[in-house]
Amino acid sequence: MSHTSRIYFDNAATTSLDPQVLEAMMPYLTEKFGNPSSIYSYGRETRLAIETARKSVAKILNAHPAEIFFTSGGTESSNTAINAAVHDLGCRHIITSPIEHHATLHTVENLYHRGEVALSYVKLLPNGHVDLEDLEQLLAGCDDKCLVTLMHANNEIGNILDIHAVGEICKKYGAVFHSDTVQTVGHFPFDLRNTPVHFITAAGHKFHGPKGVGILYVNENVKIKPHIHGGSQERNMRAGTENLYGIVGFAKALELATEQYEADSAYIKGLKLYMMEQVKKQIKGAAFNGDTLGKSLYTVLSISFPKTEKSEMILFNLDINNICASGGSACTSGADQGSHVIRAVNNNPNQITVRFSFSKHNTKEEIDLVIGKLKEII
Amino acid sequence: MSHTSRIYFDNAATTSLDPQVLEAMMPYLTEKFGNPSSIYSYGRETRLAIETARKSVAKILNAHPAEIFFTSGGTESSNTAINAAVHDLGCRHIITSPIEHHATLHTVENLYHRGEVALSYVKLLPNGHVDLEDLEQLLAGCDDKCLVTLMHANNEIGNILDIHAVGEICKKYGAVFHSDTVQTVGHFPFDLRNTPVHFITAAGHKFHGPKGVGILYVNENVKIKPHIHGGSQERNMRAGTENLYGIVGFAKALELATEQYEADSAYIKGLKLYMMEQVKKQIKGAAFNGDTLGKSLYTVLSISFPKTEKSEMILFNLDINNICASGGSACTSGADQGSHVIRAVNNNPNQITVRFSFSKHNTKEEIDLVIGKLKEII
Ligand SMILES: Cc1ncc(COP(=O)(O)O)c(C=O)c1O
Ligand SMILES: Cc1ncc(COP(=O)(O)O)c(C=O)c1O
Repeated sequence: MSHTSRIYFDNAATTSLDPQVLEAMMPYLTEKFGNPSSIYSYGRETRLAIETARKSVAKILNAHPAEIFFTSGGTESSNTAINAAVHDLGCRHIITSPIEHHATLHTVENLYHRGEVALSYVKLLPNGHVDLEDLEQLLAGCDDKCLVTLMHANNEIGNILDIHAVGEICKKYGAVFHSDTVQTVGHFPFDLRNTPVHFITAAGHKFHGPKGVGILYVNENVKIKPHIHGGSQERNMRAGTENLYGIVGFAKALELATEQYEADSAYIKGLKLYMMEQVKKQIKGAAFNGDTLGKSLYTVLSISFPKTEKSEMILFNLDINNICASGGSACTSGADQGSHVIRAVNNNPNQITVRFSFSKHNTKEEIDLVIGKLKEII
Repeated sequence: MSHTSRIYFDNAATTSLDPQVLEAMMPYLTEKFGNPSSIYSYGRETRLAIETARKSVAKILNAHPAEIFFTSGGTESSNTAINAAVHDLGCRHIITSPIEHHATLHTVENLYHRGEVALSYVKLLPNGHVDLEDLEQLLAGCDDKCLVTLMHANNEIGNILDIHAVGEICKKYGAVFHSDTVQTVGHFPFDLRNTPVHFITAAGHKFHGPKGVGILYVNENVKIKPHIHGGSQERNMRAGTENLYGIVGFAKALELATEQYEADSAYIKGLKLYMMEQVKKQIKGAAFNGDTLGKSLYTVLSISFPKTEKSEMILFNLDINNICASGGSACTSGADQGSHVIRAVNNNPNQITVRFSFSKHNTKEEIDLVIGKLKEII
């Protein structure tokens, strides 16, 4: 089976780099290589490129440029926010959910195991949404200063959190609020000046930008120390020679995503709904995880199939047919332990779960082909 | 003055990306974008690229592939090593030198200010080399487990440490040894299997590789936890979607540097010696910092000029003439405080210091031009 016939339905794991983004990066991959921190004008050129990128990102998110810090990705950003909340903002208790990304879970667990914080997991409603009443109870019962870290959208089941509501609850109890927005930045409009959140995070490669670059938004009222110490880059907040092309590419990708948001989101949502319909019609016993038709990513569709000898081989057989989809998040799909998210929201040992995630490059024809294959495979 | 006539003598800050390296990166910037952690074959392709890069890097450094971890750069690598030595290996005392890079100094200072470690600075000899007798005395006088963190080559004055000798001393006292090798990896041969060091670090952009990618070497006898927690990338040692193109570029750049080492190092050393000669002949009162003709980087030449109203403007005037050189390391050259390295080795308020650093792309003609300009400027 040739490469051109590949069907890529794993856009929540990573997306293709937009050729226009690469084009914007190219000058910095070739002639404009000066160190952005150097004082001569050749370095100032690249410094300008970084500051222009920062302004553009800030404008799109309705934040102040001084609130945007470039990092090596979503994971580093979340590590920075969570560690800073504990070490610099005095949080001694962390409230999170069992379905966060490992970038959050393993970071809070590490702080817990080192004895630096107490740790609570908020309850989930049957549809996988965070139980806001339980969150409020946890906060009310907490004597220490709390960090609440809850993701904006879940990368496996697509559920979207009401970050405004959570932010207001956090405010009421004086808690610090970090939201992992890796699946929503570049996919939804943001208005950070009017969002009660202290930290959000993003990764360029989730919206047709480059890998290895992300941002951390730090609300201007919050003063923290870096997670990576060294030179005075990023206004002393993130040391290390800047990933110049990555930063330029991140901004360009976010600009393109924003320009095309209306059209792309409607189109991709159409794909998701079409796939749901076809699955319902054509595949017996299939069920959807999360609040699929409610507050949900338009990019993600999580389907559980009845477990049979055949369906256990589903990812393998999809792969043979050159269809890319994943069992859980990419970072754990190699592991055999299955998905902690699916276990938490739908702990049914008689089901096999596959996440299909779409981009503007996918088509209904691809969905038809995948449905056809699924019927064969199951 | 046009761009083509720019003279770039700041290669210790960053180097141009080799077009062959970019060529090796291009497939991963275009069609091969699959997430290396995904299980389908399209992702395994990119995983293979990363593991091939790791093997190649390991082979060149004579290390085991399992000892090489890809990071976002030299700074992150040093932060990881130093924090791990304290948190995972039980070091309660850090010995370093006053002329380390800020990636080391600010990291150890942070641990010190948080009350996690005691901190000692080893004495320097008049030529800027570390006083190994003083190091041994510090270690002998230390009751706690020590981390010794000393850079292989200084990025401002070029002095090279005898890491074998330091490693043996550390061994004798059961100390952990980290060496910042950012200025030497890609510039000198390494034989890590026969070097008594626990951690070394490198950054791709210092040897014509990409920015935003580096490595951390962790000796196989040492078990540490990650500095960035999350997914299981890099065998659970460095979470976050891999900077695929960066990693491929890092390996390619190191391969090219290794192939061309004999020729390039001889050529670049010729440039350094030629510039020294010309400065001695033509510029009155100029002096060289560090052990310039002894154990020293062939890439770096640090020159102090007598301070006058004119020489105080030297960097500015070099810039006007389209000559790129720096006052200290790039990451601090924006700051007015001057260089902590120059202050430590040559605290002469009547001198102005400029670092010139060379690559294979420089020529004697460029040096002649710079010498001519220096005569005018001073
Ligand atoms: C000696 C030394 N160590 C560490 C670094 C940090 O490397 P990076 O800026 O790529 O993180 C540099 C360069 O900036 C350096 O010269
Ligand atoms: C919700 C979520 N958070 C965090 C991350 C981590 O981002 P990165 O791998 O780019 O560091 C991802 C993707 O892997 C994600 O989907």
